[in-house]
Amino acid sequence: MANQSKLIERLINELTKMPGIGRKTAQRLTYFLLKAPDDYVSNLAHLLNEIKEHVKPCRECGNLTEVELCAVCADETRNRQLICAVEDPADIALIERTGEFNGVYHVLMGVISPLEGIGPDQLRLGELVKRVQTGRVVEVIVATDPDVEGDTTAYYIAKLLSPLGVKATRIARGLPVGGDLDFADEVTLAKAIAGRQEIEE
Amino acid sequence: MANQSKLIERLINELTKMPGIGRKTAQRLTYFLLKAPDDYVSNLAHLLNEIKEHVKPCRECGNLTEVELCAVCADETRNRQLICAVEDPADIALIERTGEFNGVYHVLMGVISPLEGIGPDQLRLGELVKRVQTGRVVEVIVATDPDVEGDTTAYYIAKLLSPLGVKATRIARGLPVGGDLDFADEVTLAKAIAGRQEIEE
Repeated sequence: MANQSKLIERLINELTKMPGIGRKTAQRLTYFLLKAPDDYVSNLAHLLNEIKEHVKPCRECGNLTEVELCAVCADETRNRQLICAVEDPADIALIERTGEFNGVYHVLMGVISPLEGIGPDQLRLGELVKRVQTGRVVEVIVATDPDVEGDTTAYYIAKLLSPLGVKATRIARGLPVGGDLDFADEVTLAKAIAGRQEIEE
Repeated sequence: MANQSKLIERLINELTKMPGIGRKTAQRLTYFLLKAPDDYVSNLAHLLNEIKEHVKPCRECGNLTEVELCAVCADETRNRQLICAVEDPADIALIERTGEFNGVYHVLMGVISPLEGIGPDQLRLGELVKRVQTGRVVEVIVATDPDVEGDTTAYYIAKLLSPLGVKATRIARGLPVGGDLDFADEVTLAKAIAGRQEIEE
């Protein structure tokens, strides 16, 4: 569009590189930023620079943190016998929100995906083995996505850890809570039946 | 979430203030930014500061520009007898993309909306009257949204301009091109019938 400010055009182009942001959304965001208070925009710009400068992977688990050890690894009350392996740091935030997990994490930084050319060597698996070998780990829960790549990665990890005498488990597949049996696909329903649990009285 | 970096949390919070960005989207964008190349993020931060510093309203029409006159107003081939009044600068980009309008624009900076406490005084209507009085304007096309506020604003502008001997017109309401008669609501269909045009042979 020749009739628009070059700066606006450049900002729109940069924003469309973000996931889920198409051209229309980028335009809407840009006009929002143009109308927004100066403070808001300069603060946003400042934060962008700050996260790139200060947020680094946790020395222990690979979670993102501003200090050497992330809040989970630094918390002495967490159960270090239990490691939950996740694809990326965002998954840690999701699991933490449940308030149900008291172990520690290990960020794999991806999953095995031959289609995208990602093999086991590109994941943080060596670090996981080292943690298992040197720590008091009893169980590794693999919480990758319930898809082909996530399952492949889980099997690979289970094989990798079995000589070390550590239990590898996979998060349960089943019906989402509040969901409707009518709307479940057959694979999920089959997994839910296979993974059935005794009703505690 | 106590277990996350404070900077990450602050960035997520700031992003959720943008239109159409909920908490999940803000998280996804934040993790994208954390993984993105340093260049991309610092460039984005730089652009945010730049637009706030350099992009200002055009002296003539109120469009956003980095120089005194926007590209449309600076273009000597545009027809200055025809002014298209729009709600905000984003609408200019939309109309320019059609390639069908060769006149100039006037940004109203909103529409009359009693519910939101926006009266005619808060719009750039005085500037519009002044342009009509001093220029060679023949017609003002009101291209506000086809809703109650947009229509109210159009009627107000028509009344305001009638003593000045300038024609005020409204963009056509009708069926969207490529749409289906079955899916049109009654009001749109009624407008489409009322606004019917002779078929040119």
